[in-house]
Amino acid sequence: MHRSRVYAILIDAPAPEAARAAAFWSAALGVPAEPDARYPQFIDLHDALPGLVTAVQAVDDAPRFHLDFETDDVDAETARLLALGATQVARWQECRVLRVPGGHLVCVLPVESPPEIFDAQARTWP
Amino acid sequence: MHRSRVYAILIDAPAPEAARAAAFWSAALGVPAEPDARYPQFIDLHDALPGLVTAVQAVDDAPRFHLDFETDDVDAETARLLALGATQVARWQECRVLRVPGGHLVCVLPVESPPEIFDAQARTWP
Repeated sequence: MHRSRVYAILIDAPAPEAARAAAFWSAALGVPAEPDARYPQFIDLHDALPGLVTAVQAVDDAPRFHLDFETDDVDAETARLLALGATQVARWQECRVLRVPGGHLVCVLPVESPPEIFDAQARTWP
Repeated sequence: MHRSRVYAILIDAPAPEAARAAAFWSAALGVPAEPDARYPQFIDLHDALPGLVTAVQAVDDAPRFHLDFETDDVDAETARLLALGATQVARWQECRVLRVPGGHLVCVLPVESPPEIFDAQARTWP
């Protein structure tokens, strides 16, 4: 058994437009936008949406979005989503990047939330 | 003054893949998928994400997503987002479809949530 939950929504914007996108979303949602201290491609939108980390990510691609699944077992969660029809398209550090039916992207990554949030909200999968 | 809040996240999938996409998201998130009784292009994913209506929408376009802003004044909310750099690209019934900086889509629509949720969670804009 392992557990997972949707942890974050990423608004992926073409790199030349990412700062402008972050400024828009910050004003549109009435929340601060702050560059992530660890990863400069991310601009965090604090408390933008209930219960979900929200950020703009600068990408070398067309505008898109993706959801991050955090899990206590990246291999098992990736296998679960592959069995549901996803295909793995990349790895980035400990994260697996999957393209899911319908064409959207999902990342599977180790638990990022505080343990009490993950324990309370994660689903358990057989 | 008027009020608005992000009400829904739409996972827009090319129409031929929408049913498969909905089946994936239903299983991946562990929630039921049900066609919307009023609008057959929407497949609701009940309680998929905290505090946000979540649905797959069949579209005649590439995979994308959009956020729905519900508001007590569609004209004023549209004007607010246009002033922040969005451009209006379509109207659909009472909804305005905007392309926002970074290239993503947003819809502005009249309040859909129960009044107590809207009153508790909407932001007030000057």
